[in-house]
Amino acid sequence: MIHSTELTTRTYECDSYGHINNAIYLNYLEYARIQFLNDLPISYDELRRKGIGFVVTRICIDYRLQVGSGERLRIDTWTLRKQKVRVVFRQNIYRGRDLVAEAEVTWACINEQGKPVRIPAELDTAALEPEGRP
Amino acid sequence: MIHSTELTTRTYECDSYGHINNAIYLNYLEYARIQFLNDLPISYDELRRKGIGFVVTRICIDYRLQVGSGERLRIDTWTLRKQKVRVVFRQNIYRGRDLVAEAEVTWACINEQGKPVRIPAELDTAALEPEGRP
Amino acid sequence: MIHSTELTTRTYECDSYGHINNAIYLNYLEYARIQFLNDLPISYDELRRKGIGFVVTRICIDYRLQVGSGERLRIDTWTLRKQKVRVVFRQNIYRGRDLVAEAEVTWACINEQGKPVRIPAELDTAALEPEGRP
Amino acid sequence: MIHSTELTTRTYECDSYGHINNAIYLNYLEYARIQFLNDLPISYDELRRKGIGFVVTRICIDYRLQVGSGERLRIDTWTLRKQKVRVVFRQNIYRGRDLVAEAEVTWACINEQGKPVRIPAELDTAALEPEGRP
Repeated sequence: MIHSTELTTRTYECDSYGHINNAIYLNYLEYARIQFLNDLPISYDELRRKGIGFVVTRICIDYRLQVGSGERLRIDTWTLRKQKVRVVFRQNIYRGRDLVAEAEVTWACINEQGKPVRIPAELDTAALEPEGRP
Repeated sequence: MIHSTELTTRTYECDSYGHINNAIYLNYLEYARIQFLNDLPISYDELRRKGIGFVVTRICIDYRLQVGSGERLRIDTWTLRKQKVRVVFRQNIYRGRDLVAEAEVTWACINEQGKPVRIPAELDTAALEPEGRP
Repeated sequence: MIHSTELTTRTYECDSYGHINNAIYLNYLEYARIQFLNDLPISYDELRRKGIGFVVTRICIDYRLQVGSGERLRIDTWTLRKQKVRVVFRQNIYRGRDLVAEAEVTWACINEQGKPVRIPAELDTAALEPEGRP
Repeated sequence: MIHSTELTTRTYECDSYGHINNAIYLNYLEYARIQFLNDLPISYDELRRKGIGFVVTRICIDYRLQVGSGERLRIDTWTLRKQKVRVVFRQNIYRGRDLVAEAEVTWACINEQGKPVRIPAELDTAALEPEGRP
């Protein structure tokens, strides 16, 4: 499954070049992953209450285009790999048909002590099975 | 040359886990690169006034340890590769002797129209020549 | 005119208490003011290109309720006072019927040198005339 | 007691005007209040572990001067009023001798359920008694 979510960039996310700052894209990616879970529906907050959390352990992101404020972006998210403790997502950001950025993000599942734990059963859903799409 | 700079993490940089949010690390890395230039000394603001800017085109970052607020971090930055338009930095973040995160960041030089341009002569300094260090 | 806009709070806007950090509310208020202009429609970006900008010179904000991530908020914005150089907005943030925060925000109009200038004619619209509503 | 702390503004805190964004000042003020506690020394993290937290319930801030990145600021913080549950701080931000911003910030003490509670005994220190200074 390829999950899509949209957002509009905001003025306060721009840096002194008038472009969305590189760190803000990581916020967008987090937003899209949480929306993915919510839409399955898997409640991130519910998992948190059960003592299960997710931390990012790796991000590789290529910035292709500069984007200003007030622009509509779409973020496509899908699973590349699913392991015992980790899920690797691919996340592409588009403005219309143009690829703005592409990222690979690794999430590790942790317990309340911050230790890695097995991905909860809630995530054993077809929607989170790895996609063949490049 | 390996440039080192230090900073202390702040309360408002923590997320709901009480840890520095993954996007904030990109701010820290930007801070360290700017400090590197400033210490050479190359004035980032001066370059901006000449119409020369830098944009991040790629970041790969591995998060190794979780960090809370009020913690002292050191960021080591050195050049991995220097090309016509791009500089690739290696940036390691340490807390004491522990490696917190390691990143590879590509900066491209742009003009005021946002087009890639040759790295300015100001950056032709021994301190920015690629280091052999792994 | 009372302008209303909605947004959903995001995970990365939460602090270590799991609540939206106080500084983030100022981002929300900025977002709502820009939406107000856009909806009139007055293009903020267009004004910027003409060399006209707005800076916040004063904010008073009362925080009434704590809000977590994934919550839907509505922001009502209206003009309290309009002067030569300044516009004073009232901005109330609601979650359902509950008042989350109320703010008074003063915007001053500036030119490209950052000097105060008279509010542009574009803002002489009935929608921006002061409301009597308390 | 008037507590002073210093910080240098950073590139990523600037907005598209090249100035520190208005919301960032609230981060600076939070940083200065935490430093004040730390220097007494009152450990904010220790209080948190005891289930005592602080939330901002009100901020009034006047922005006097625009500030760019790489500028050294000093923040003076002192107590204006101390009540059962609340402390009202005055916080002035200076660049050299110039007043950049002045703020009044109300902190309320809360327990782990987010309910207002009496200010802990740790804060009954002469350094936090109200100052007469205007």
